Amino acid sequence: MITPDPAMAGPTFPPPRRAAPGDTAAAAQPPPAAPAAASAAEPRPLLAARFRRIRTVTGQLAAPLTPEDQMVQSAPETSPVKWHLAHTSWFLERHVLERFASGYRAFDDRFAFLFNTCVEPQPTCHPAAARGLLSRPGHEELRQYRDHVNAAVLRLIDETPDAEWAGVARRIELALQHEQYCQERLLADAKHAFWSNPLRPTYQPPQPAALAAAAGQSWMVHPGGPEGIGHDGSGVAFDLEEPRHVVWLEPFRLSGRLVTNAEYLEFIEDGGYADAALWDPEGWTTAQREGWRAPLYWFKRGPDWFQFTLSGTRLLDGEEPVCHVSWYEAAAFARWDGRRLPTEAEWEVAAQPLRRTGNLLDYGRLHPAVAACAGDGPWQLYGDCWEWTSSPLVPYPRWSPSDKAVGEHAGLPAAGRMVLKGGSALTPGDLVRASFRHHLTPSSRWHMTGIRLAEDV
Amino acid sequence: MITPDPAMAGPTFPPPRRAAPGDTAAAAQPPPAAPAAASAAEPRPLLAARFRRIRTVTGQLAAPLTPEDQMVQSAPETSPVKWHLAHTSWFLERHVLERFASGYRAFDDRFAFLFNTCVEPQPTCHPAAARGLLSRPGHEELRQYRDHVNAAVLRLIDETPDAEWAGVARRIELALQHEQYCQERLLADAKHAFWSNPLRPTYQPPQPAALAAAAGQSWMVHPGGPEGIGHDGSGVAFDLEEPRHVVWLEPFRLSGRLVTNAEYLEFIEDGGYADAALWDPEGWTTAQREGWRAPLYWFKRGPDWFQFTLSGTRLLDGEEPVCHVSWYEAAAFARWDGRRLPTEAEWEVAAQPLRRTGNLLDYGRLHPAVAACAGDGPWQLYGDCWEWTSSPLVPYPRWSPSDKAVGEHAGLPAAGRMVLKGGSALTPGDLVRASFRHHLTPSSRWHMTGIRLAEDV
Amino acid sequence: MITPDPAMAGPTFPPPRRAAPGDTAAAAQPPPAAPAAASAAEPRPLLAARFRRIRTVTGQLAAPLTPEDQMVQSAPETSPVKWHLAHTSWFLERHVLERFASGYRAFDDRFAFLFNTCVEPQPTCHPAAARGLLSRPGHEELRQYRDHVNAAVLRLIDETPDAEWAGVARRIELALQHEQYCQERLLADAKHAFWSNPLRPTYQPPQPAALAAAAGQSWMVHPGGPEGIGHDGSGVAFDLEEPRHVVWLEPFRLSGRLVTNAEYLEFIEDGGYADAALWDPEGWTTAQREGWRAPLYWFKRGPDWFQFTLSGTRLLDGEEPVCHVSWYEAAAFARWDGRRLPTEAEWEVAAQPLRRTGNLLDYGRLHPAVAACAGDGPWQLYGDCWEWTSSPLVPYPRWSPSDKAVGEHAGLPAAGRMVLKGGSALTPGDLVRASFRHHLTPSSRWHMTGIRLAEDV
Amino acid sequence: MITPDPAMAGPTFPPPRRAAPGDTAAAAQPPPAAPAAASAAEPRPLLAARFRRIRTVTGQLAAPLTPEDQMVQSAPETSPVKWHLAHTSWFLERHVLERFASGYRAFDDRFAFLFNTCVEPQPTCHPAAARGLLSRPGHEELRQYRDHVNAAVLRLIDETPDAEWAGVARRIELALQHEQYCQERLLADAKHAFWSNPLRPTYQPPQPAALAAAAGQSWMVHPGGPEGIGHDGSGVAFDLEEPRHVVWLEPFRLSGRLVTNAEYLEFIEDGGYADAALWDPEGWTTAQREGWRAPLYWFKRGPDWFQFTLSGTRLLDGEEPVCHVSWYEAAAFARWDGRRLPTEAEWEVAAQPLRRTGNLLDYGRLHPAVAACAGDGPWQLYGDCWEWTSSPLVPYPRWSPSDKAVGEHAGLPAAGRMVLKGGSALTPGDLVRASFRHHLTPSSRWHMTGIRLAEDV
Repeated sequence: MITPDPAMAGPTFPPPRRAAPGDTAAAAQPPPAAPAAASAAEPRPLLAARFRRIRTVTGQLAAPLTPEDQMVQSAPETSPVKWHLAHTSWFLERHVLERFASGYRAFDDRFAFLFNTCVEPQPTCHPAAARGLLSRPGHEELRQYRDHVNAAVLRLIDETPDAEWAGVARRIELALQHEQYCQERLLADAKHAFWSNPLRPTYQPPQPAALAAAAGQSWMVHPGGPEGIGHDGSGVAFDLEEPRHVVWLEPFRLSGRLVTNAEYLEFIEDGGYADAALWDPEGWTTAQREGWRAPLYWFKRGPDWFQFTLSGTRLLDGEEPVCHVSWYEAAAFARWDGRRLPTEAEWEVAAQPLRRTGNLLDYGRLHPAVAACAGDGPWQLYGDCWEWTSSPLVPYPRWSPSDKAVGEHAGLPAAGRMVLKGGSALTPGDLVRASFRHHLTPSSRWHMTGIRLAEDV
Repeated sequence: MITPDPAMAGPTFPPPRRAAPGDTAAAAQPPPAAPAAASAAEPRPLLAARFRRIRTVTGQLAAPLTPEDQMVQSAPETSPVKWHLAHTSWFLERHVLERFASGYRAFDDRFAFLFNTCVEPQPTCHPAAARGLLSRPGHEELRQYRDHVNAAVLRLIDETPDAEWAGVARRIELALQHEQYCQERLLADAKHAFWSNPLRPTYQPPQPAALAAAAGQSWMVHPGGPEGIGHDGSGVAFDLEEPRHVVWLEPFRLSGRLVTNAEYLEFIEDGGYADAALWDPEGWTTAQREGWRAPLYWFKRGPDWFQFTLSGTRLLDGEEPVCHVSWYEAAAFARWDGRRLPTEAEWEVAAQPLRRTGNLLDYGRLHPAVAACAGDGPWQLYGDCWEWTSSPLVPYPRWSPSDKAVGEHAGLPAAGRMVLKGGSALTPGDLVRASFRHHLTPSSRWHMTGIRLAEDV
Repeated sequence: MITPDPAMAGPTFPPPRRAAPGDTAAAAQPPPAAPAAASAAEPRPLLAARFRRIRTVTGQLAAPLTPEDQMVQSAPETSPVKWHLAHTSWFLERHVLERFASGYRAFDDRFAFLFNTCVEPQPTCHPAAARGLLSRPGHEELRQYRDHVNAAVLRLIDETPDAEWAGVARRIELALQHEQYCQERLLADAKHAFWSNPLRPTYQPPQPAALAAAAGQSWMVHPGGPEGIGHDGSGVAFDLEEPRHVVWLEPFRLSGRLVTNAEYLEFIEDGGYADAALWDPEGWTTAQREGWRAPLYWFKRGPDWFQFTLSGTRLLDGEEPVCHVSWYEAAAFARWDGRRLPTEAEWEVAAQPLRRTGNLLDYGRLHPAVAACAGDGPWQLYGDCWEWTSSPLVPYPRWSPSDKAVGEHAGLPAAGRMVLKGGSALTPGDLVRASFRHHLTPSSRWHMTGIRLAEDV
Repeated sequence: MITPDPAMAGPTFPPPRRAAPGDTAAAAQPPPAAPAAASAAEPRPLLAARFRRIRTVTGQLAAPLTPEDQMVQSAPETSPVKWHLAHTSWFLERHVLERFASGYRAFDDRFAFLFNTCVEPQPTCHPAAARGLLSRPGHEELRQYRDHVNAAVLRLIDETPDAEWAGVARRIELALQHEQYCQERLLADAKHAFWSNPLRPTYQPPQPAALAAAAGQSWMVHPGGPEGIGHDGSGVAFDLEEPRHVVWLEPFRLSGRLVTNAEYLEFIEDGGYADAALWDPEGWTTAQREGWRAPLYWFKRGPDWFQFTLSGTRLLDGEEPVCHVSWYEAAAFARWDGRRLPTEAEWEVAAQPLRRTGNLLDYGRLHPAVAACAGDGPWQLYGDCWEWTSSPLVPYPRWSPSDKAVGEHAGLPAAGRMVLKGGSALTPGDLVRASFRHHLTPSSRWHMTGIRLAEDV
């Protein structure tokens, strides 16, 4: 089990930004960021190159999959890979080209219905649960769609008048963030699709086995008090990350590394899945109805536990962080361990000073690596698994959707979702920042989701 | 409305085979057919040629569909086209090759699990509702699978010792009947898959429009009394068609042609879908829950009714037989019309003397043609639409499954299914015979199902 | 196991009414019964006395239940006892008093909505599944309702002009048949309600234990050929029992007594509930979903099987007929036993010559008695348990609802129901006749339903 | 519509307790309350009198209901009144008598199973959705049960040694809070039960009509900054209200009175129920599935809106606060109005200095009264309706369940619930305090729930 060694408890955080005498709430907040439009917009060639790179990556991620593979929708909440390919192009059409590229002709007027997203039921979009039925448009037609949109965006980058460039650039940046967000979805959905096939196809060749042992657990301590969280306005971010605001924290500490498979197995073997007292009531009911006995993608043959990965099925590696657990399982584990999940604010305050790096999509492993310890080096809070927090997603104080036109990432967040922080082995590095608010329903398991522990001090 | 013209009421049936004086039940039955094995088995070259032809047709039926199209499973009770392609090959592997071809090696041992059918839940087969997730084996691999099986069966036809030929031939015949049955399923499922896509793709080019008007209605009269129904043992048949046995009929008459779209529209406009008194109680509940207001594949734009076909969407043609109605709708229509559906026995007795021809798959229209009247020519009971009867499917007296090994077509029929007779524009001609018992749940609408009327005399 | 002893196979039936040479269907049928109205109507004092008796019995059957007990609706398809009390009074209001008693004032106009039955969804009646919510009208008000209706019917019996008496009498008879049908429902529903309470209340004191052993099995043989079934028009009957008509039977034999608990236990212990091959496909799916492992009201404690009865819980008595099995279980048992269920026609033909007596409601036992054998005495086909047949309920040839106004017992029968024959230990003797067609969905288990076997000869 | 009049904007709050220079989180918190056991326990005679009064009230609330009324469970999430009567007695048995009254004999050992609550599925309690089936124990037996428990608790109050009195008193206080919480449930459930009966019975006589008009809207302003919320440890409270801790607020203002029916009607007539953009995504889906077009208990006849109340059905009074809206509807209304719901912390900070009084259960109206304005008098935040906040229920920082044995009010709160504050016309005055955290799923409508607005300043 996790044996926190006080002697190992690492450095405390850099001194928090404290509220000064006589502060009002407004004063305690960092000065508001200069409006994004005023910040120097990215030079056109650089943005064009980034655009090319990111759009190319989406195609490369789909490349190992046959047109048939790209059809599969293995759960109502997942989407076929081909749908992601189309949706991201449609997003550029709707939110960039139709807005800024005068005279742009949609590739196919019917695609807005097929590849839009909306709150259902609505007559304005194809039902999300029926995306797996769209054999047409076909694979080749969607490739042409992407080319058509790419060419138009690159032309827009070239031809936008200087006076409008900042606004166009900002919108393209947002669309690229969206595209990268969909890259992670694409991989998570493809993994689930392959898992749903008894032949258990593999997406990529086996990756090098882990040689090292997981680090011992260590703890990061925070003394509490007022802190600032939320996006500070520099660079691109989704609406929900704003505005930056003050929160008051109690003293706490955060575990230096993620919970490992070996630790989670102890929970299983100790009867964690059979003890209702450890579980959120809804979680218990869900776990019984679904027959959960282990994380998603785990199964047992004889005495051995196996795990399905994008590189195929292999023996469970106890040294890796546990992943594909629901919030219910994460919270039950933490309670069993005598600890709790961190709040979003605790996590974010801990992450703010750290380097935004880790085992991310860019490394190509597509699976958590050996659980690294933050104890004796620079803290490391990104990568491997998205980390469940105890915080339900609610808009921040003074939040208002800046531009309701920008689709699912600016509208009202749905009630009942829990915030996740950090990023996983499927997350593009460009999405990684302390303020990013991933959010999922507490029963979700098909994203790469893991557990970091917290406790009161 | 249907205006039966007594003057047009056509010829009565040929005199029924009456029970003779002193008959016992056994005596009244036709002499039992000589066992199939004893009948002259088809010569090898002829069977080989038929095998090649039928297997080729299955592939040809799938050919207009892309690999992506062949993935779609648009309802739990339909199957992807690719699954049909695989299932029919597996059927030959299991029921012909594994049984008779010594030394046969299965193409892939795992396919038995994927492409078998079973009563669910069972651990021996892939769940039917999840067939749309099988992107692997891929399109090309399934083509190789079909080739592998075809070669093995042709080799078996060549190499079977003479003494065993009759049994092998009979089993291959059965497998071909099964393959042809699946050909109809394949087309019905593909039609539903295309309907489920808002782009409404077309399977084949438009067919010639109907020029003629539907014939006036006429009636075939039967005087009642004992008759024989069921398969008589000559040639191939499915288990459920046997044994031939005596039924006692009351005098009745049968409509000379199917109910037309125009007649069905009168039912709709007269409020047929809103009058619970016309409906079977379960049917009423189903119709309200599903929001039925017209047959499947019909929709209204402004004042006009349209119909989706395998040749695309077109204006509804009032002269064609109504099709894609559930048993509930067929029975409600008949009741509204002051008539009833025929019993299976009535239909079969009427059909026995008739030529087995009509608008079947072999004609390539793949849609009902103008409703032809049986009144002034040879009776015509086959083709266009499967015809709902008022008879629930029950095994015939003295029935026993002859060979439980032959899969879904020899096992216990499920309770709650209604018998359909005749054959549709999607039915291969080889399946057409008076004794054939198609059966569907009373809420099924995606097969090509229509309405023939009956009444007491 | 059932060991049919050929030596014990009892007398054959009286010679069947054979079809004579040259018979037409019409000729083979018995002469049509004189219309009921023409038969001598029951004298008024006798009908009044029967009316009083039957209405009183309904109240007596409810008497052991508290007002709270009478509220319970333990499944969507059951009704609270208080609802039965009200519904039977409403039936007399609607179908007798409103039709024949000029100037009759309904007790409460709103009751027609509450206590009617209809095909749902419809705006004309309270949803059947919500009957358990009707705390008002209260217990005492419903007693007044019954008194009000009783007085009005007795006045009508007195005051009907002679010329109208036959019609009124016939309608009252029908209402009494309906009332008695509801008496059985009332008890079946009360039993299920008590079973649903963990305290397992008892309805009546323990009944004398069975002392004898079940008889050995014997068989009644029928040579096949044409027979007449259906109600012959003399006396009262429900619409669906008519008209009498000819059926052609194959030679068969019928078991002399019902299957016992001991025999059914063998089926259980032999893995009957785990062998899909024995089951109807829908039945298998149902059994797995519902977790069926034994008949309803059975449970096991340690090595012992117990059974819940209207006299409380007691050790299972192996000598009694098995009851509370669904059609699926009955059919699976028969198949496991190498036999089959009888058809409705087989059962009815066997029962026609027999005395209409047995362990019925009138005996007060309210539970099957020791399985009696028909082998060496007069045949006994009534009482103990309703007997599942292999026949789906379909209207008889030439059937038409005689009077659609008479509620649920004259309308269209719902598709998908199986016919049961005979009567149970909860059935009033007045309902017992060869032509009576009880019908239930094949998954129903809360009526007192058992198994008689048949086989081909 | 709501027309906030800045001139009317009332007094600001008393100066918030600000964080002082150099505060740490701990320092900013109020000094921890002395443990409850150390506070002077209530004198025995006073507690005995309160116990008698509160237990008597529960019985009085049930008194207008017949034993049949008390059986009704009209939704899976409601409970029959008789179950509340039993559950509250069982709560005293389990959490007071079994713990402190040596030698106490349970009234009936089986009641713990029937009247306990647990996280389902569990084998330790009767399923919550099946509580309406418990006709036994009967009405009279439950009365004896209450008497038995009352006598034992009063004896315990008398006989507890002085040294143990504080602990016993505290536990009894908690049980009384629980009992009073159930009193509100009892009335909310009874209202829903009567609504589910088409006869729409009334619980109590009509109450005096409102004469006054609703006050104009006014606003309470708060300047933001650190504040303390949560229970401060004096007097009794449920676990979830603790511990008191610091939150940082942005400047905001809170509406002086609740939203009225007239204002809500404007939302309806403006198409609020048809505009997905106003709704939480889950809320939209729920509203469409359930067919919501108005609050629960509203219906329209011709041009008029009616409302069902515990005093029967009457014309909707536009001056009363809207109630029986779900969180989804409350949030959609606020968004339509250009405002938002308050956070729990905002509400609680505003309420802390106010008198705990209002239109509560003790007034006997059992329905909201005319919407009073807080603008020109002492603020009034209690009574009429529970007020939805935008805060999901999460435990407070450093929370830990103090005593897991005390049932549903000390365990883990379920994910996905929203906090409500204040109290309704059904809430006993003893439950009313700023820290009380009522919580419901966002789709709940059968509690008396209304809307207070907030906005950023």
